[in-house]
Amino acid sequence: MKFAACIEYDGTPFYGWQRLSHGSTVQAHVEQALSQVAAEPISVVCAGRTDSGVHGVGQVIHFETTASRPERGWLFGTNAHLPDAIAMRWIQPVSDDFHARFSARFRRYRYIILNRAARPAILQGRVYWQYAPLDADAMHQAAQALIGEYDFSSFRAAGCQARHAVREIMEVRVSREQDFIHVDIVANAFLHHMVRNIVGSLLKVGAAERPVTWIATLLAQRDRTLAGMTAPAAGLYFVYVDYPEHFGLPTTYTLPAYQS
Amino acid sequence: MKFAACIEYDGTPFYGWQRLSHGSTVQAHVEQALSQVAAEPISVVCAGRTDSGVHGVGQVIHFETTASRPERGWLFGTNAHLPDAIAMRWIQPVSDDFHARFSARFRRYRYIILNRAARPAILQGRVYWQYAPLDADAMHQAAQALIGEYDFSSFRAAGCQARHAVREIMEVRVSREQDFIHVDIVANAFLHHMVRNIVGSLLKVGAAERPVTWIATLLAQRDRTLAGMTAPAAGLYFVYVDYPEHFGLPTTYTLPAYQS
Repeated sequence: MKFAACIEYDGTPFYGWQRLSHGSTVQAHVEQALSQVAAEPISVVCAGRTDSGVHGVGQVIHFETTASRPERGWLFGTNAHLPDAIAMRWIQPVSDDFHARFSARFRRYRYIILNRAARPAILQGRVYWQYAPLDADAMHQAAQALIGEYDFSSFRAAGCQARHAVREIMEVRVSREQDFIHVDIVANAFLHHMVRNIVGSLLKVGAAERPVTWIATLLAQRDRTLAGMTAPAAGLYFVYVDYPEHFGLPTTYTLPAYQS
Repeated sequence: MKFAACIEYDGTPFYGWQRLSHGSTVQAHVEQALSQVAAEPISVVCAGRTDSGVHGVGQVIHFETTASRPERGWLFGTNAHLPDAIAMRWIQPVSDDFHARFSARFRRYRYIILNRAARPAILQGRVYWQYAPLDADAMHQAAQALIGEYDFSSFRAAGCQARHAVREIMEVRVSREQDFIHVDIVANAFLHHMVRNIVGSLLKVGAAERPVTWIATLLAQRDRTLAGMTAPAAGLYFVYVDYPEHFGLPTTYTLPAYQS
């Protein structure tokens, strides 16, 4: 039997999603917890791996098992075996042709910048802090150049293992709420570090170190060495994965938002 | 010279606000950091002590010093010396008759309940989790009985050292946003554990274990042993302290809010 499930995690204490021979990872904890509930070894496949320190709000996984448990049994049992920083939000049976990664139509990320003189206290590790004032409107305007199907080599990590760098961004939105700036990006798929590299360049536009037209220029240059820094992992949230309706998975999602 | 300052803190790693001979407290860290910036010993007075695990968004302090520093020097210097879980949000000179505790006209607290089947992961230690559905409207209705000047003995901790239990609540509001329930309370002052004891009783109304009229009954009984549990510290935020306008302190505040 095949199941799909949604995993939430605070990325701070883990070495990213993917199981490693050494080091605590989200995947390893999820597999251990599920294996205890199923009383058999379980391997999971995720919609998108996240790096060390990146948070998951709506990571989706699938796994197969011969174990039969009520849905509440899976949910409460798994959460009882997971460390505090990881929780399963929902779980449901899914048809055999579902694949957490390959069935996905698009993915949504949010990057959160705290833009005030005082660094965060309650939200440390959960936002990226920038004390110099940023122009969110300029960042939004600049980012609109990224919408469409392009070669995103300028925003691709050196170690990215994807076969090519062409991705389609459907939506980019930069908005301010009080001291917080949210960068929301929806794309069919993402290259390694793509959101953080885009944000790193948008930060230079927001600080007026580069013109609004710079993002379009960078995109056309297809040269990672010309773009901004890789923005820190702490501000990044993997929010939502969309699948075709016939799989019947939850399509509501919540955007991480903080005030304080 | 006298200064007023606003302190934000994640209460999780500390033994509450008040300086202790043993154990890490918010006050001790703030005094250490300020003393380093001032290069002389500094003692601070706060608007309201918070217990172990309770968070501060808008705690206000005052202190006196002979040191002269630019405001940015105080702010950035203090934040550089504070642990990650504490930050100074603003600081400004204030007249000699200002007292962080005695000048306060009213205080605002928010209690945050996460009400969903899955326990929190990203927000663990920052909310109180209740998996059984709660009726926020019933809680709100019940809580309106608390508005006014009353003897709040029913919601007062056994060890509370206040001379009497009469306080005035100006506002109580219980509201739901997605999976979150916010309990906002404004009063001239609070007894020890008063917010957490009120929330503990409201939880019983929200779960339909007690009728909406129960809070009014409890209030009239003035007997702590009849009321609900003390709700856990993790959900409580000290949000704002209001002072007379002539002190010129910031009157804007932000309510802690989370989604995810």
